[in-house]
Amino acid sequence: MPASTPTQQAEQWLADFDAALRAGDIPRATALFRDDGYWRDLVAFTWNLKTLEGHAEIAAMLEATLARTAPGQWQLDGEASESDGVIEAWFTFATGVATGKGLLRLKAGKCWTLLTTMQALEAYPEPRGHNRPKGAEHGANKARETWREAREREAAELGITSQPYCLIIGGGQGGIGLAARLRQMNVPTLVIDKHDRPGDAWRKRYKSLCLHDPVWYDHLPYLPFPDNWPVFAPKDKIGDWLEMYTRVMELNYWSNTECESASFDEASGEWTVKVMRDGEPLTLKPKQLVLATGMSGVPNVPHFPGAEEFAGEQHHSSRHPGPDAYRGKQVVVIGANNSAHDICAALWENDADVTMVQRSSTHIVKSDSLMQHALGPLYSEEALANGITTDKADLIFASIPYRLLPDFQRPAFDAIREQDADFYRRLERAGFLLDFGADDSGLFLKYLRRGSGYYIDVGASELVASGEIKLRSGVDVACINRHSVSLSDGSELPADLIVYATGYGSMNGWAAEIISQEVADKVGKCWGLGSDTPKDPGPWEGELRNMWKPTQQPALWFHGGNLHQSRHYSHYLALQLKARLEGIETPVYGLQPVHHLA
Amino acid sequence: MPASTPTQQAEQWLADFDAALRAGDIPRATALFRDDGYWRDLVAFTWNLKTLEGHAEIAAMLEATLARTAPGQWQLDGEASESDGVIEAWFTFATGVATGKGLLRLKAGKCWTLLTTMQALEAYPEPRGHNRPKGAEHGANKARETWREAREREAAELGITSQPYCLIIGGGQGGIGLAARLRQMNVPTLVIDKHDRPGDAWRKRYKSLCLHDPVWYDHLPYLPFPDNWPVFAPKDKIGDWLEMYTRVMELNYWSNTECESASFDEASGEWTVKVMRDGEPLTLKPKQLVLATGMSGVPNVPHFPGAEEFAGEQHHSSRHPGPDAYRGKQVVVIGANNSAHDICAALWENDADVTMVQRSSTHIVKSDSLMQHALGPLYSEEALANGITTDKADLIFASIPYRLLPDFQRPAFDAIREQDADFYRRLERAGFLLDFGADDSGLFLKYLRRGSGYYIDVGASELVASGEIKLRSGVDVACINRHSVSLSDGSELPADLIVYATGYGSMNGWAAEIISQEVADKVGKCWGLGSDTPKDPGPWEGELRNMWKPTQQPALWFHGGNLHQSRHYSHYLALQLKARLEGIETPVYGLQPVHHLA
Repeated sequence: MPASTPTQQAEQWLADFDAALRAGDIPRATALFRDDGYWRDLVAFTWNLKTLEGHAEIAAMLEATLARTAPGQWQLDGEASESDGVIEAWFTFATGVATGKGLLRLKAGKCWTLLTTMQALEAYPEPRGHNRPKGAEHGANKARETWREAREREAAELGITSQPYCLIIGGGQGGIGLAARLRQMNVPTLVIDKHDRPGDAWRKRYKSLCLHDPVWYDHLPYLPFPDNWPVFAPKDKIGDWLEMYTRVMELNYWSNTECESASFDEASGEWTVKVMRDGEPLTLKPKQLVLATGMSGVPNVPHFPGAEEFAGEQHHSSRHPGPDAYRGKQVVVIGANNSAHDICAALWENDADVTMVQRSSTHIVKSDSLMQHALGPLYSEEALANGITTDKADLIFASIPYRLLPDFQRPAFDAIREQDADFYRRLERAGFLLDFGADDSGLFLKYLRRGSGYYIDVGASELVASGEIKLRSGVDVACINRHSVSLSDGSELPADLIVYATGYGSMNGWAAEIISQEVADKVGKCWGLGSDTPKDPGPWEGELRNMWKPTQQPALWFHGGNLHQSRHYSHYLALQLKARLEGIETPVYGLQPVHHLA
Repeated sequence: MPASTPTQQAEQWLADFDAALRAGDIPRATALFRDDGYWRDLVAFTWNLKTLEGHAEIAAMLEATLARTAPGQWQLDGEASESDGVIEAWFTFATGVATGKGLLRLKAGKCWTLLTTMQALEAYPEPRGHNRPKGAEHGANKARETWREAREREAAELGITSQPYCLIIGGGQGGIGLAARLRQMNVPTLVIDKHDRPGDAWRKRYKSLCLHDPVWYDHLPYLPFPDNWPVFAPKDKIGDWLEMYTRVMELNYWSNTECESASFDEASGEWTVKVMRDGEPLTLKPKQLVLATGMSGVPNVPHFPGAEEFAGEQHHSSRHPGPDAYRGKQVVVIGANNSAHDICAALWENDADVTMVQRSSTHIVKSDSLMQHALGPLYSEEALANGITTDKADLIFASIPYRLLPDFQRPAFDAIREQDADFYRRLERAGFLLDFGADDSGLFLKYLRRGSGYYIDVGASELVASGEIKLRSGVDVACINRHSVSLSDGSELPADLIVYATGYGSMNGWAAEIISQEVADKVGKCWGLGSDTPKDPGPWEGELRNMWKPTQQPALWFHGGNLHQSRHYSHYLALQLKARLEGIETPVYGLQPVHHLA
């Protein structure tokens, strides 16, 4: 056999795969994968977000989906590359209703990982580039409605005399980005948000807050930040951007609007959503309901004995107003994750006397190191210079099955551990309890598994190491007294303020609050992979629970995550909603069963 | 001699040019140009915008500038291309203080056209891409000033307790884009504008207005329109974008502020500018003053005998409020250019009885045809797909010397004339007087020479051709009566409203209004090339008069033009201002003498 280039090998594989699929020969298609091969499909075959692991799962998925998906037009997109014996190749394809894009990894001629994603519904191309709207209506027309008149009419009618197809509760970056995609796809959509102005969810947080993720990771759909945007944007600048974005993207966005209740009528397939808009009650009747209220669910407030006797102020971190009122006060912050660190540092900067109570170990990574080792290869100026656009980076990241992700991530965090060894030593010397995740796989896995348990260090760790922020670790709270907190080791911390930086429940808590406990239990826990690590009980799920995909409750969707996830997965969620609006068949393959209520 | 590739030939030329310049051998450098060769320099050699035509002018420029410019590092940027015997090649270079970019055209081994542009001052790179700001200030700091506090402090101080280096009068797209560049270059800048909100200059115009230029031509600096932006954006959408832009780009922008007077003190090199901000008088002391009040100067209102007797309403097109109040009225619109057509069409749409008085011939081009033949090759989706970015398109356009531009433009307009022959015949049959410019060079030359004399047809011409808009052509106004307009052919038009769509004076009229007639006369006429065609008297200037370059009045600058020009030339104007702020020497070569007062 003559040696062939990576491109030729990838082409050959794709041709064989195509031939097997065309022939409906599922065993032959499956045999093109390694025994430990993976196929991750985002909507294209499964109308779901689904990772198939190994031959049996791949074959079962094809049995259920191949005939009606009618895939074809598999074509390499650019040259394949090879490194460490793995060939990587981009490709495009089409199904009966959509165009798709994917990424293939081959090892010794067989597929190790395959990603297939739906990119656009054939019959409903987005009005961009060549398809952009004309804007001006040339010619003369006595019944002309201008752009402004049309926008004003739409804003006056939607939710009042006409109903949105989709209602998004929560107008932070998640809800806004999804709404922009739905607007492009011509899905009548309304966003409601409790704050006064878009962006307020950022503006109203503590004043020194900046994004912990760098700019290349944070773009919204369609309108990337300009290249003078700061690496770590200050919260008010992000707030202004989001406000501008809702306007420029022509979103229908109701500020000052709270959802009071929602219920679904199975017969009519319609939600009844009661909202309070500017203090006036109003009922909405959308067909689809998206909860974009933040991937952090309802605040977890622990009930320590004696808390009701406390004479000072106590609140959850989500209600912490910032440090200004606590100069010279004694503050106990319970928790040692991101919020705890940020709040402690801001209090210290404002001359409060602050003690952090660390009850279990925390994963700490310096922001610069995280950028350098973990994010930089995909999201940085260097990555851009190497041709890795935001779109490509998102797909590359999505192409790694969650099962393999720890192995992909561990080397970066090993490198960080070595590079910052001195920093970690100093933290441990101060008594801080460190970890790198259950299997040393680092920050992103902790985020995916439990959404907590870490701090991206932007300065507070030095204050902990130096003792400026006092630390009590490996203890729990025994009880709360009138003027102090008693710890499990018998010691006592005087306190004027107690901050519970104790995290959040699962997002389905929002469903319990807004819809019913019954529906919350029906859809079950959100987020997490079923990794059987702390706060992420098994069995293995292969995908994040309930996020951006159909749930056990028809017409109820969960949207959230960081800016990267919101940007990327809003695309697939929007395609699922658009298909339903247009009456395209969307048979869901492998709807996940519920294993945990929260 | 072996045949060599276009790239090799361009490399050879550049090496020869470099060697001649390094040797200070001006005759040798000059001999590398054809006898009819051109060198257009934007700031890099001349600290001016300057086109040198032929050997003598090129040699004279080099004599004056070569030693202190110290050019070097000439390098091809990508492969050269060849078509019709002309080799085209991009290159980069550096001077003693700046980096530059250019475009070279060779014919038979000699330079036909050379463009050299300054791109960045070496010591002051813009904070973009790799140089972008960090944003977050990591670490702990008890004296931390947040982004928002810093912005609020700056906004409170600039113009009050600290003075802007540069004051821009006029906050339309021109002033805003320039201010964004100056902000990036860290030049303390204030924009003042008379309207309530940024974007109002667009919002307050007649309601059916859309941009007449397509989106690819219209981007602002740094923040391009997203790819879902309409081809021809409606005015209110542009208004919203400009408002958003001032905020996202963090401009210091005073709305509701009018300039009352300005005077320059030569001794201190400082302007004294009296403004009225929100009704309160205030004095500003900038070092540099930019008039960005629109390339149209003060409105031309002709004084027809009897006008003061007219019983109806009469106003200049710039004050026309739109058609709403004139339903069923008899309207006479004097003029037949863009404004006249737009106003007539909107009045017709609102059921007014409208007559257009065409006093001299007009150049008409259908918007779609203009896009297809004249703009498309540089500004379109196709151009982008061919690798012609906005930046490249701007430089390609700038690389064609104004003297040659008619020859480059004529074929496009010949094609349009042929393609739309039937359309033009119908217009002529209705009595409309057509032209294609003095030398048949079409719209863009008319725009550059006189900024008037054309209509980009978006629908009104059909109304003229069909007689829906009544037309009186080849006549002038004889006098105005109490209820009618008398024409030079003895006929009379009854009128409730007269609109003077009679154009604008030169931009130095703004200097007369704001500064003094003396200064207006000292700088002379703005705009126009000295082409010795109607409204553009000779002698030949080679560049637009007074635009974006030093004028006879130190520290006074004119900025304006369409969105394309504002975007591109604001770069060179900003570099000139930054260099002056930093005390870099900026000896101006070839400051233009003044030949016409207005």
